[in-house]
Amino acid sequence: MKIEGKEYRTIWFDEQNQVVKIIDQTKLPHQFIIKDLKTVKDTINAIKAMEVRGAPLIGGTAAYGIVLAVMENNDLEFIKKSSEELIKSRPTAINLQLAVHRMNNKLSMINSNDLLNIALKEAKEICDEDVKFCENIGLNGLKIIEEIYNKKKDTVNILTHCNAGWLATINWGTATSPIYHAHKKGIPVHVWVDETRPRNQGANLTSYELNEEQIPNTIIADNTGGILMQRGEVDMCIVGTDRTLSTGDVANKIGTYLKALAAKDNNIPFYVALPSSTIDWDIKNYKDIPIEERNSEELSHIEGLDKNGNVKKVQIYPRKSKSMNLAFDVTPAKYVTGLITEKGICEASEKGLKDLFK
Amino acid sequence: MKIEGKEYRTIWFDEQNQVVKIIDQTKLPHQFIIKDLKTVKDTINAIKAMEVRGAPLIGGTAAYGIVLAVMENNDLEFIKKSSEELIKSRPTAINLQLAVHRMNNKLSMINSNDLLNIALKEAKEICDEDVKFCENIGLNGLKIIEEIYNKKKDTVNILTHCNAGWLATINWGTATSPIYHAHKKGIPVHVWVDETRPRNQGANLTSYELNEEQIPNTIIADNTGGILMQRGEVDMCIVGTDRTLSTGDVANKIGTYLKALAAKDNNIPFYVALPSSTIDWDIKNYKDIPIEERNSEELSHIEGLDKNGNVKKVQIYPRKSKSMNLAFDVTPAKYVTGLITEKGICEASEKGLKDLFK
Repeated sequence: MKIEGKEYRTIWFDEQNQVVKIIDQTKLPHQFIIKDLKTVKDTINAIKAMEVRGAPLIGGTAAYGIVLAVMENNDLEFIKKSSEELIKSRPTAINLQLAVHRMNNKLSMINSNDLLNIALKEAKEICDEDVKFCENIGLNGLKIIEEIYNKKKDTVNILTHCNAGWLATINWGTATSPIYHAHKKGIPVHVWVDETRPRNQGANLTSYELNEEQIPNTIIADNTGGILMQRGEVDMCIVGTDRTLSTGDVANKIGTYLKALAAKDNNIPFYVALPSSTIDWDIKNYKDIPIEERNSEELSHIEGLDKNGNVKKVQIYPRKSKSMNLAFDVTPAKYVTGLITEKGICEASEKGLKDLFK
Repeated sequence: MKIEGKEYRTIWFDEQNQVVKIIDQTKLPHQFIIKDLKTVKDTINAIKAMEVRGAPLIGGTAAYGIVLAVMENNDLEFIKKSSEELIKSRPTAINLQLAVHRMNNKLSMINSNDLLNIALKEAKEICDEDVKFCENIGLNGLKIIEEIYNKKKDTVNILTHCNAGWLATINWGTATSPIYHAHKKGIPVHVWVDETRPRNQGANLTSYELNEEQIPNTIIADNTGGILMQRGEVDMCIVGTDRTLSTGDVANKIGTYLKALAAKDNNIPFYVALPSSTIDWDIKNYKDIPIEERNSEELSHIEGLDKNGNVKKVQIYPRKSKSMNLAFDVTPAKYVTGLITEKGICEASEKGLKDLFK
């Protein structure tokens, strides 16, 4: 999608310099900086520091992490150790594991002379597949927005949480893909963007990317969705997910669950958009999903532009206070109206998912 | 309650200098500044700028605003005009109107030579009454905490939203009063403090005042309460309210409704603490409560300490983004376990309230 009028993906391999390029998302929205990853260690650091984030993009980055590992040392032991470290870099996103395993499976079948080319090809394929999946998610979700528009004959107000935008994937996004497709089709849409504390990915990334595509949007505090729904100012919600259980329960950015509860209470459809790569067929009880606890400084400190336009970090909490930073919560399937996938829309249930994917 | 070991109220009349003193709450937690109010205009500005906030404290401040009006010009026309302006300074808090009307009623019955003394006496009485009410709320709410402690025999985890602490009242607070009383009685309590975007009164005020009274507390993003409840890490919620309808519906800081939904979904008791002065016996439908929309800069900009310890304001949103800042939402009575008032605990319903108050 576009930034300042130019088309980008979130990650790509620079053939000429033999490096992986990413957009450093921790610098957005105040600075647009493209960063080189040269080693698997760079990749792990980029994932940990959330320079890349969003389940599909983490998957794509991990795939390129294996490419960089192969470039450093194509010994299979080194690749195995790198793979383990990559998997540990973020605990909740399932795509990370899937991409690393897929790369390893491919490499284990191959004569070592070909390793780099095979790795590059597979990483690109993982990314291209994701783009195609996101595009299809968009086309499937578009039908829901069209239906609302055909009834309402007025701007469709969509609430989203965090960033499941193109910046969280390779392109298009998951939750935003139906919105981009509706906009391209000329359907008037307006997006309520949850700020998404503590890291403000809604404000910093979703609003930013919607602005760059000229889609009307308004940032709101995470506390605000409830009353907007009570007032009838939200027609539907679409969020992404980091891990979807086969039961239809959905782990996503902390706060998603609260919006799903409010949507249910106000009879507003609540959709979760996902590529099937985020489905975890193994875990059956959502209480078994590991919930990452991140540095509490992400809460107590915040970055912004000072009056001179320089990026400054300030401490916003009282000095004596402590804080806790859980990154995800789980929305039980009963609060999810439907899952928008690359293969179609299904009920958030084992049956719904199996009918589409098994 | 205490700040740096010294006992304060949030507002008092300085006899010697004939001014009203307040703690400028917009400067907390980074600076503790006591400010003089010399005119009714000062008072209106202090309420508008949220230097004083919280329904009971706004009521007390408005009462002293009338005192200052009388000191400026004891002509009844001036007092009437000042009263109207005071009432307009914040639209949602019912205490504001009640205090202004009570002051006017008193003054209208009095010979004009006595106006100032009568006004002073009445304003002090309004404040003293609030302190007594808050103390009784604490003693009534204490019973609920004690009951949980007697069953659990371990630290009672209480979630609160925004600041319904002593800083929102004249002393003790509403939602925090049961907590202070439990702590004084030796019951181990720990408070989950919702940050409460956009103005962060939870972090800036509630956590600050709990710290100063040595009560263990942890600041969390507003998004976090849901998963803590899913995990069983919240034993009860207590929040305040700006306006309680006779139906038991409760208007409070934006985001309260979302926590009430999560509490219901996880069978966690959700209490609202209030002095009866916040009850609105007139409005029957919560959709008729005026919901204040505040400056969107409260969302897009934030103040904190830079690395040199200076207070700096930074812009945190993308330059091209717009935002919207609704200050309150409404929690329907069906999600409220009970109302903790100065007269006892009652069901959140017309019957419950009438049995106690009519």
